[in-house]
Amino acid sequence: MEYHPGLHLLTTLYSQRKDLLHVSGQWKTFIQSQIAIHGLTEVGNCVHDFPDGGYTAVHCLTESHISIHTWPEYGLCTCDVYLSNFRKNNDVITTAIMEQIKLFFEITHEEMHSLRR
Amino acid sequence: MEYHPGLHLLTTLYSQRKDLLHVSGQWKTFIQSQIAIHGLTEVGNCVHDFPDGGYTAVHCLTESHISIHTWPEYGLCTCDVYLSNFRKNNDVITTAIMEQIKLFFEITHEEMHSLRR
Repeated sequence: MEYHPGLHLLTTLYSQRKDLLHVSGQWKTFIQSQIAIHGLTEVGNCVHDFPDGGYTAVHCLTESHISIHTWPEYGLCTCDVYLSNFRKNNDVITTAIMEQIKLFFEITHEEMHSLRR
Repeated sequence: MEYHPGLHLLTTLYSQRKDLLHVSGQWKTFIQSQIAIHGLTEVGNCVHDFPDGGYTAVHCLTESHISIHTWPEYGLCTCDVYLSNFRKNNDVITTAIMEQIKLFFEITHEEMHSLRR
């Protein structure tokens, strides 16, 4: 069998939408909608809201995972979208979801890393 | 407040221990022991075993996350250890846990990426 590395995008996103960084409710609705739109399969998730604000959420997919960690006190989050290419090439979807995440947070600037793995 | 980027290690690990790549049981025991030993706090996890073998597991931590996706048919897994440094510097722990993961799988070779974020 041949090995087809996937695409892993890792960003730090800066946003003034403190409401979206503070609690996970809108994120969860948004990202699960993205997962459905792109025909991905969520096999589980863990979402944890911290008592003083900020949240950690990871969505496990048959294709790998999407994760976010927010720090509203710094006005930023770190976000990963990683889709493997074993069953089919998901590169276009990986990029599309990260673009939608940036729009969701109405980001002011970003740092992006892109890895093949 | 000052921003202290964390360390995110991303590996592809090759192993002949098909048993460890096939089902998640031993991984879960191992990694939760590592989380406890290093004083990290798991706030949730999702672990999914695929019907034909292989698993996806993500452990959400107050410090960020640890993830693994295994493909026993290729004899490999992709693994992330990402600990933020907001509360304290966790770089030593990040590196130590990745080393323990390599020992756990008795890896034959690896590809490693290291990111500050």
